[in-house]
Amino acid sequence: MLNGKARAYTNIALIKYWGKEDPELILPKNNSLSLTLDGFFTETEVLFSKNFTQDVFYLDGMEQSRNATKKVSTFLDLVRKRANCPFFAVIHSHNHVPTAAGLASSASGLAALAGACNQALALNLSPKELSQLARRGSGSACRSIFGGFVEWERGHSDATSYAVPIDAQGWEKELAMVFVLINDQPKDISSREGMQRTVETSAFYPQWVEEAQTDLQLAKAAIQAHDFQKLGIAMEANGLKMHATTLAATPPFTYWSPDSLRAMTIVRTLRQEGIPCYFTMDAGPNVKILCQKKNVQAIQAALAASFAEKQIIAAYPGPGIQFVETEVTK
Amino acid sequence: MLNGKARAYTNIALIKYWGKEDPELILPKNNSLSLTLDGFFTETEVLFSKNFTQDVFYLDGMEQSRNATKKVSTFLDLVRKRANCPFFAVIHSHNHVPTAAGLASSASGLAALAGACNQALALNLSPKELSQLARRGSGSACRSIFGGFVEWERGHSDATSYAVPIDAQGWEKELAMVFVLINDQPKDISSREGMQRTVETSAFYPQWVEEAQTDLQLAKAAIQAHDFQKLGIAMEANGLKMHATTLAATPPFTYWSPDSLRAMTIVRTLRQEGIPCYFTMDAGPNVKILCQKKNVQAIQAALAASFAEKQIIAAYPGPGIQFVETEVTK
Repeated sequence: MLNGKARAYTNIALIKYWGKEDPELILPKNNSLSLTLDGFFTETEVLFSKNFTQDVFYLDGMEQSRNATKKVSTFLDLVRKRANCPFFAVIHSHNHVPTAAGLASSASGLAALAGACNQALALNLSPKELSQLARRGSGSACRSIFGGFVEWERGHSDATSYAVPIDAQGWEKELAMVFVLINDQPKDISSREGMQRTVETSAFYPQWVEEAQTDLQLAKAAIQAHDFQKLGIAMEANGLKMHATTLAATPPFTYWSPDSLRAMTIVRTLRQEGIPCYFTMDAGPNVKILCQKKNVQAIQAALAASFAEKQIIAAYPGPGIQFVETEVTK
Repeated sequence: MLNGKARAYTNIALIKYWGKEDPELILPKNNSLSLTLDGFFTETEVLFSKNFTQDVFYLDGMEQSRNATKKVSTFLDLVRKRANCPFFAVIHSHNHVPTAAGLASSASGLAALAGACNQALALNLSPKELSQLARRGSGSACRSIFGGFVEWERGHSDATSYAVPIDAQGWEKELAMVFVLINDQPKDISSREGMQRTVETSAFYPQWVEEAQTDLQLAKAAIQAHDFQKLGIAMEANGLKMHATTLAATPPFTYWSPDSLRAMTIVRTLRQEGIPCYFTMDAGPNVKILCQKKNVQAIQAALAASFAEKQIIAAYPGPGIQFVETEVTK
């Protein structure tokens, strides 16, 4: 049996991946920097067999449409070519995220799938090679191969674009991220679509690429210095600039909702009250707050007072990809 | 008696004035384009006399602080120099705006003051010269000298920076602007301060200046063609780009409130339902919706359903500065 199973954790970008240099190979325009979190993960098992007549993809026990399976199959084609394996596969994937949280990220999903394939077909990929492979499934998945702080080096080719862990000497263990789960409506504009429209039409996009490089250096220096405030300032500024680019796209758009702005105001107020914390947002209305572990409860309490009806979840730095024994390999 | 009185109307920029090339002379970085409105105006009477020992400024009947009077005195110094008049003045100014609307714009205020001084000291300024003079009091005041659509030509010196009316062949009479008066809190960052911080620190500011020039040409072409949709698209895109620049400032900031975003969503929904209307915002949370006169009621109704507690006011294109007879001149 050609069987493998892996668990990969979601990562949140502090310095954003926003725009592709090469949409086919998924090479990004700029380096990005993320924190892998323990709170949300995907566990995926894959089984290749000569008896299967097509790829079948189950997500949380539900067989997915042909359309949803197509993205997975496209990724499996890459793996099959690499392993010289002609077989179709059955994939069982489970997202361990809060109900309807909108955090069932393709990052953890594609990283787990890459890891499961690596095991099933005995590819024996190094972490770097696994990161490269996961990138082809979903750009940010390359960062979920590693735990803690991670940098995705954009590279200039398939072989040179992959993530590398950043050694923070364990400092990341002092940090946490609080999620305000705001989205209660389907996204109007997907991450992929928003990114593409921005690259192609936003007047501010070229400057964004420059800014991201500068912000990345600030963030890396802050991590090396264990300077939480500097890291937070660089992260918050970078996220706001990313969202500013969408306002200058044609047509303009935003991922912000009224509640996103309310959460930002709470974060600024908390800072004025002496609790250092900084927000970031991705391609959706959820607000993610980087803070020190010691302040998680105070931050959750301040948010709960204004967001009684929303889920507020704390997550902590998590590990890289984990291979899981299957019934077959045990 | 050296006595004069004038009324000037607020104008709203469709293509924004956002940043000074010369803060002393108030020369802007880019041309801007506005619509003068009938809804909100300032009426100001000024009296110069050798018997006064200082400038005294009454706003809506209340004597203003020395600090508030200083801006007025600085402007009067320019006028006194020009007229070779050594006398102090008493100024009575009345803002005709909805209570606490946050629309007591310095544009109508300084335009009315310039007009009153012109009359009191018999300066006999041409409209162009009056626009130049008003500009020195508050940049956007130069546009309130004229009615309807107005362009502020940035120029490169005191003499070459002034507003000129744009002849829309009366088309502006088909248009209206609906105001959603959101602000219920004092501004954290004044227009002047936000502008300055953005010019000095925003990574996206240089591109903004380029964009504004392009947007201005689109808006002028739309006005000449009487093409409401094209005018609205150019206006909305320009305003969003202006607000995007603040997100890239150091430190970043925004004038948007949760209610601003709610109003924007209503505007987009109205468009999807077939009612053409477009929003813009200035240095504050109020949302201003450009529409056709025939749709004012439908737009007001849609807003009222979501903003029961806020003032929603329609305004229509208004005239330029008006000189008013005073008790003395009658």
